[in-house]
Amino acid sequence: MTYTPPAPAIVDDIVSKTKFDANGLISAIAQDTKGVILMLAWMNADALRETLLTGRVCYWSRSRQSLWRKGETSGQQQHLIEARLDCDMDAVLMIVDQTGVACHTGRRSCFYHGVTPDGLRDTAQPEISTKELYGH
Amino acid sequence: MTYTPPAPAIVDDIVSKTKFDANGLISAIAQDTKGVILMLAWMNADALRETLLTGRVCYWSRSRQSLWRKGETSGQQQHLIEARLDCDMDAVLMIVDQTGVACHTGRRSCFYHGVTPDGLRDTAQPEISTKELYGH
Repeated sequence: MTYTPPAPAIVDDIVSKTKFDANGLISAIAQDTKGVILMLAWMNADALRETLLTGRVCYWSRSRQSLWRKGETSGQQQHLIEARLDCDMDAVLMIVDQTGVACHTGRRSCFYHGVTPDGLRDTAQPEISTKELYGH
Repeated sequence: MTYTPPAPAIVDDIVSKTKFDANGLISAIAQDTKGVILMLAWMNADALRETLLTGRVCYWSRSRQSLWRKGETSGQQQHLIEARLDCDMDAVLMIVDQTGVACHTGRRSCFYHGVTPDGLRDTAQPEISTKELYGH
């Protein structure tokens, strides 16, 4: 299954119906084709529009205050297979084809701090070093 | 697999390490045991603490500005199987045992507005009426 981008006018209509918060953002969840939740990040209207138009996932980086084309530095891109907005139109779920790993720590998923009776324990280890990911 | 709550002091330690935003909230994703993303909602420190201590999922309702013990009106409760925080400690993923449906529309998942070349199209239908869910 592959993602077929709607025409620009249809993307604009979808973006216009999306309920961005006071900061102009929605939550965006990336899930791989096996059902693993890779990460949660943020999108403004421009990021959502670009993602839906191109099929390549683009977030809004709150720390850098700029568009964040996932993988532009690390090469670990996300390509859209399917996108669904939620009942309130204020969150988007994306099924993606993830190149390599999603987490900046080198882990496949960002959700690795597992709650156990002994406190937080890592549920996964890095698959690639940050040096390989970012060259430093 | 079932969730074993940590002792209160350990839960307090986990909550103290969690990075709540300017509104005192984190994003919380509920996923069922088959990998289906059911919903995305919000938790403040009290909601996260109650969820981790009791194993029954409690959110913070932004619209009602109160704790929201999922299913308290509809009966559609969520019981924790596993909880993991993300790399930045500002989002939580919960694998849950969902009674019935997660969405207030009667659908299993809130993420049903599918993006298609023709615009948004429902990807799922209600499994139960809102009358049955809420008695009105």
